[in-house]
Amino acid sequence: MENFVFQNPTKLIFGKGMISHLNKEIPQGKRVMVTFGGGSVKKNGVYEQVKKALESFEVIEFWGIEANPTVETLRKAIQLGKEKGVDFLLAVGGGSVLDGTKLIAAGLLYEGDAWELVLQGRSASAVPMGTVLTLPATGSEMNSGAVISRKETAEKYPFYSKYPVFSILDPTVTFTLPIHQVACGIADTFVHVMEQYMTTPGQSRLMDRWAEGILHTLIEIAPDIIRKQDNYELMAEFMLCATMGLNGFIALGVRQDWATHMIGHELTALHGLTHGATLAIVLPGLLRTLREKKLAKLVQYGERIWGINKGSEVERAERAIEKTESFFKSLGLATRLNEVQIGEDTILEIEKRFNARKAAYGEDQDVTGTVARKILENCK
Amino acid sequence: MENFVFQNPTKLIFGKGMISHLNKEIPQGKRVMVTFGGGSVKKNGVYEQVKKALESFEVIEFWGIEANPTVETLRKAIQLGKEKGVDFLLAVGGGSVLDGTKLIAAGLLYEGDAWELVLQGRSASAVPMGTVLTLPATGSEMNSGAVISRKETAEKYPFYSKYPVFSILDPTVTFTLPIHQVACGIADTFVHVMEQYMTTPGQSRLMDRWAEGILHTLIEIAPDIIRKQDNYELMAEFMLCATMGLNGFIALGVRQDWATHMIGHELTALHGLTHGATLAIVLPGLLRTLREKKLAKLVQYGERIWGINKGSEVERAERAIEKTESFFKSLGLATRLNEVQIGEDTILEIEKRFNARKAAYGEDQDVTGTVARKILENCK
Repeated sequence: MENFVFQNPTKLIFGKGMISHLNKEIPQGKRVMVTFGGGSVKKNGVYEQVKKALESFEVIEFWGIEANPTVETLRKAIQLGKEKGVDFLLAVGGGSVLDGTKLIAAGLLYEGDAWELVLQGRSASAVPMGTVLTLPATGSEMNSGAVISRKETAEKYPFYSKYPVFSILDPTVTFTLPIHQVACGIADTFVHVMEQYMTTPGQSRLMDRWAEGILHTLIEIAPDIIRKQDNYELMAEFMLCATMGLNGFIALGVRQDWATHMIGHELTALHGLTHGATLAIVLPGLLRTLREKKLAKLVQYGERIWGINKGSEVERAERAIEKTESFFKSLGLATRLNEVQIGEDTILEIEKRFNARKAAYGEDQDVTGTVARKILENCK
Repeated sequence: MENFVFQNPTKLIFGKGMISHLNKEIPQGKRVMVTFGGGSVKKNGVYEQVKKALESFEVIEFWGIEANPTVETLRKAIQLGKEKGVDFLLAVGGGSVLDGTKLIAAGLLYEGDAWELVLQGRSASAVPMGTVLTLPATGSEMNSGAVISRKETAEKYPFYSKYPVFSILDPTVTFTLPIHQVACGIADTFVHVMEQYMTTPGQSRLMDRWAEGILHTLIEIAPDIIRKQDNYELMAEFMLCATMGLNGFIALGVRQDWATHMIGHELTALHGLTHGATLAIVLPGLLRTLREKKLAKLVQYGERIWGINKGSEVERAERAIEKTESFFKSLGLATRLNEVQIGEDTILEIEKRFNARKAAYGEDQDVTGTVARKILENCK
């Protein structure tokens, strides 16, 4: 086990009817900017609940944070927030709204342009923010990370700032999500867990068990969720899995491999693909490419998650990768680049971008531009 | 899944050599009282490491917090702390030192007698405290709870205050622990998990998996730890299990049953038995008594943890309870009251105490004095 320092201060407020707690969680007297994506929160009742809970506050609304939030949009929110003297942010939406709001929170206390913050990779100061989550997927509700895009250059990078002060998760608000978004959310959660797990065995037995616990749960609930999405217990389980999948709880003392995400971000930046959808394509290809290196863990994964206990180690690893790809297919997701009309040009562009920034991802920092190209070739 | 609110702000600093981080974690200028148990920290090098790390601080030492810390001892620490103007506490020791220091932290800001705080059950205000843990068991390093005894009346009650600001866990400091203490620590951790898990299935699949993950890990590592205790990886795993077993992470949205602990506390209060040792006796007896009520979860536990998948449900549950008792025996612990010379008098006294305070423990508040007596009869 590696040495580690862990702290996650976010207050998680979970369950039916919990949005009404908002007015107790935001200090009275704050000037609150509430940030939204599109209009879906007006259809599913979330907007009304938030508005009611914030009756006693001075509220400024900011609408239009898009999927894969862009600095171009967020700059407008920062400007508005500075003008209005905003000192508390409430993000109401999915991971994109939450991520975007993390940059707004930092930007409100920064003199320069917000893209500078993204390029710096982190900000130590930020206006406090809370969240009301409407789409389980990114884990942004209980971590300090965000991913921000820049439209004019088709770039997309991670950015770290403060943890949300609180996050409210009411599973009933997910009942009306488009099924493709639910599928992408399941894939995103699954891959988050895999990137903290799929390195080498024996680093921490407990962390392995906890990662496997999330994978088991997702695999158990996915078929029912994909068929029928208004089951409270199942959506609560999914919501809990998504949060626990990326809040640090399964990463204690273990190495991590975020190469799938880094390659996936490029596919989104270049083609606008939904984040979770890119991961369902890249992860199987990455595992095929790095099968030898990750063999022991693939065998453990195959046995514990998919019950694969026959054949040589290589055969078992291959079978585990096939099972993973089949799982993504069962969610209705594409798992190959040609299914989404992405070809050699993109592969070469990503290799070029990785080389240009001397990229070295993965648990051993050996996923360079060349390796990324091989991975993408294995996604065809 | 039940609605829940979760927040755990403790900063966990884990690994070899981490005690040296102390001076960065305590704000400069603080008047620090360092609290200890007996002298074991002088033999294992912890005292020297702590002293060195705190060179730049004004330090007051308080020695002698005993196993099952008593208000009689803690009152002295509170008095000393008030005299010296202490505004930060550092607990260096096992769960008892940590628990006792939680009461000192609250007592320093309280005018009345500290036992009043214990009877109130909680305190909202307390001086900030950090910890250096030397014995994995109670989870006190990452929760807000403590258990305090009163010698003159042989009473022992839980008390809740603030979370430690930080806790430093260096597995190497556990290499020289007496083996009986390690065994009791494993039993304590195992039972903490069981009390958050052994109710009814289907409340949260993920929480079940995570609880089972800790149980699996403990069962895997225990035989080696009990034989040879200076294996860093195994002791790190044990330390992580003990902390994760009682920091709220496996209790999200599920019901709990703390009856085993409440009965165990009485055995300690009346006979001075080590806490973990009482649990190894009470848990099997409680499961035998409440087998029907907990049948479905016992079957799940038997199958997932002990691989029991044959026989009727009752047979499987009984086999799972036997396996649990055997596990405690394998740690060298007694599992029956007669092994520790406790008889009918004590059983009747505990029934009387439970009745006097209208006790109603367990996930359905149905473990009354009468039920406690039945449980203890089943521990003979």
